[in-house]
Amino acid sequence: MIKFYDLAAANEKQRFSPYCWRTHMALKHKQLPFETIPWRFSDKEVIAFSGQGLVPVLVDGDKTISDSWKIAEYLDEAYPNTPSLFGSAEAKRHARFIKHWTETTLHPMVSRMTVLDILNELHEKDQPYFRESREKRFGKTLEEVVSDREDTRKKFALALAPLRLATAEEPFLCGGTPGYADYIVFAMLQWARSSSAFPVLLADDTVNVWRERMLGLFAAYAASFPTPGK
Amino acid sequence: MIKFYDLAAANEKQRFSPYCWRTHMALKHKQLPFETIPWRFSDKEVIAFSGQGLVPVLVDGDKTISDSWKIAEYLDEAYPNTPSLFGSAEAKRHARFIKHWTETTLHPMVSRMTVLDILNELHEKDQPYFRESREKRFGKTLEEVVSDREDTRKKFALALAPLRLATAEEPFLCGGTPGYADYIVFAMLQWARSSSAFPVLLADDTVNVWRERMLGLFAAYAASFPTPGK
Repeated sequence: MIKFYDLAAANEKQRFSPYCWRTHMALKHKQLPFETIPWRFSDKEVIAFSGQGLVPVLVDGDKTISDSWKIAEYLDEAYPNTPSLFGSAEAKRHARFIKHWTETTLHPMVSRMTVLDILNELHEKDQPYFRESREKRFGKTLEEVVSDREDTRKKFALALAPLRLATAEEPFLCGGTPGYADYIVFAMLQWARSSSAFPVLLADDTVNVWRERMLGLFAAYAASFPTPGK
Repeated sequence: MIKFYDLAAANEKQRFSPYCWRTHMALKHKQLPFETIPWRFSDKEVIAFSGQGLVPVLVDGDKTISDSWKIAEYLDEAYPNTPSLFGSAEAKRHARFIKHWTETTLHPMVSRMTVLDILNELHEKDQPYFRESREKRFGKTLEEVVSDREDTRKKFALALAPLRLATAEEPFLCGGTPGYADYIVFAMLQWARSSSAFPVLLADDTVNVWRERMLGLFAAYAASFPTPGK
């Protein structure tokens, strides 16, 4: 069975990496049985066999693949008889643009809203590394980073406008059925949901309609994971 | 021959509407002969036959189409034997997302950098309407709107990250050859170039590489149009 090293919080059932959530959804979409191996930032030696230090890492028989995008490409190539993640060259290009948009525009804002909550959800052994590396990245304490998060949420709502408009026209970014572009953006929201009780979307935001659709996929797979304090 | 009502500056050869630039590029892409009719904001009665008050308006025989997106759809439907603007349902979906992204994220920033320059390029008869409607929209004078445009340019450079990354991977947003998604984003830059001497892109921004590619298409069609003071 496919094994997948997945970033875990102190509660090992709680999974919050936006990159790993892409892989969760991709594996469900491909209808492939898999088991996840909870992994913490400190467990570098555990995935040293992959030749790098980040998750997701997928192990499928004698194949080891890291990097969420490469994993998605691998799954479509290795399993052509289950639903395609990308569909066509054009749809893959669309997913690629949405990946860039998500990582450059949305991820920094989500991080500015949730990074202190993430710290508090982590296993003790991961906390010093996490605080130090993130404070270095932001150039300030995590407490300072999140102090204006209601303001960040307003900017985030503005930045989500293309998602809001596209998913008002069709059920998913990929049209009538979800695909990898949807999983990329949903994984970003799932990152927030799995690590913070702060609602990054306001209750009246219609992006919630699409998010609920995504949470309901595959027998409410994503919704079944624990959130902070639950 | 196809006629196309196109927003013009005081210099009637100077064309600056981002929506009309989409149609310029779409018509060139479709290899269709056309003539443009310079139009000013005040000439509402001239396009009253279209049932609305905005350009572009396309007249092709007995057909009248307004709205740049509908014009692009019409051109692909009416002229299936010249290169397709959209290519496939997936590529059209990609263009649609990029349209939403361009209009919600990029247009407001370009406007905040160039709106005062646009005013100064307009025909005298258009200036009172333009100043009044835009100051009402911004809630401040146009002089105030552009006063921090170097700051806006920094935010604009950040917002362009997905375009920068995508066009470093492939020559165009649509892959090896340009398509309607490229024209939508390029039209936004052409709006700035045609109405303002303020460089919205810094000289070392690699987005310029893609922009130059776009300026060079169709025998340097877009580059042949006058810019302010030229």
